[in-house]
Amino acid sequence: MLPLDPADRRFEDYPVGAVFEFGSISLTEPEMIAFARQFDPQDMHTDPVIAAAGATKGIIASGWHTVSSMMRMLADHYLPKNGLPSPGIDELRWPNPVRPGDVLRLRITVTDARRSKSKPDRGLVFALVEMLNQRDEVVLTMKPMNFMRTRTP
Amino acid sequence: MLPLDPADRRFEDYPVGAVFEFGSISLTEPEMIAFARQFDPQDMHTDPVIAAAGATKGIIASGWHTVSSMMRMLADHYLPKNGLPSPGIDELRWPNPVRPGDVLRLRITVTDARRSKSKPDRGLVFALVEMLNQRDEVVLTMKPMNFMRTRTP
Repeated sequence: MLPLDPADRRFEDYPVGAVFEFGSISLTEPEMIAFARQFDPQDMHTDPVIAAAGATKGIIASGWHTVSSMMRMLADHYLPKNGLPSPGIDELRWPNPVRPGDVLRLRITVTDARRSKSKPDRGLVFALVEMLNQRDEVVLTMKPMNFMRTRTP
Repeated sequence: MLPLDPADRRFEDYPVGAVFEFGSISLTEPEMIAFARQFDPQDMHTDPVIAAAGATKGIIASGWHTVSSMMRMLADHYLPKNGLPSPGIDELRWPNPVRPGDVLRLRITVTDARRSKSKPDRGLVFALVEMLNQRDEVVLTMKPMNFMRTRTP
């Protein structure tokens, strides 16, 4: 189990093979439209009438809205408080659409954890992040890398 | 050159080796804080006083705010209007921070373009996207895949 207080989370709390699950969140249609008007103005994200007649059969969330909402769940439930910047993300995918009212939860599997040799106060944690909806369909996957401070250098 | 009207853009407009540049945009500190309070509530993104005293020496944008702003530039200047959903993104990186007022522009290099054999009305375009600031520092890179409709099947 991860410490509930993000300020207490350290590298040692993310062993390889650990699986963390938490959630859920939902996005409303007005939220999807507001985000997309600012950042991803495509009809499938912004126009209920055109979207209903099109391939998506209704408004779907911008993938960047989905991934930003996932970040909020990571900050609340997974990452240490005020951690180190992430080196990056690999293999970001959106295999299924997110629709208004979908109930979204996260499953995170630690795939590798390497203590830094040059900087013993930190380690690098590799994970597979999966976001699932209420029908257990995967709507987002990605493989982030995160530096975590160690409890014992 | 890409057709200026997104509705006119087709697979044939993205040949391998083509380089497209456009921009710019800027993010203000209040915009950075508002985005981060909703999606990425870490002090380096939300608290000017704590951020000024910390490693980032001031507010920096959430990487998800940077990438969402990049999406807006892609929608306005690069992608076809109301195109097909993207299969995904590889190697998303944030090599340098984005600070309030930075002037950000995009450079996109088409790295591969494959006409679909099974669906001749479309092709898959692979690109390297780089976002640069006013000092020519790279602040974001990623490798997106985008299905584009063909002009001539």
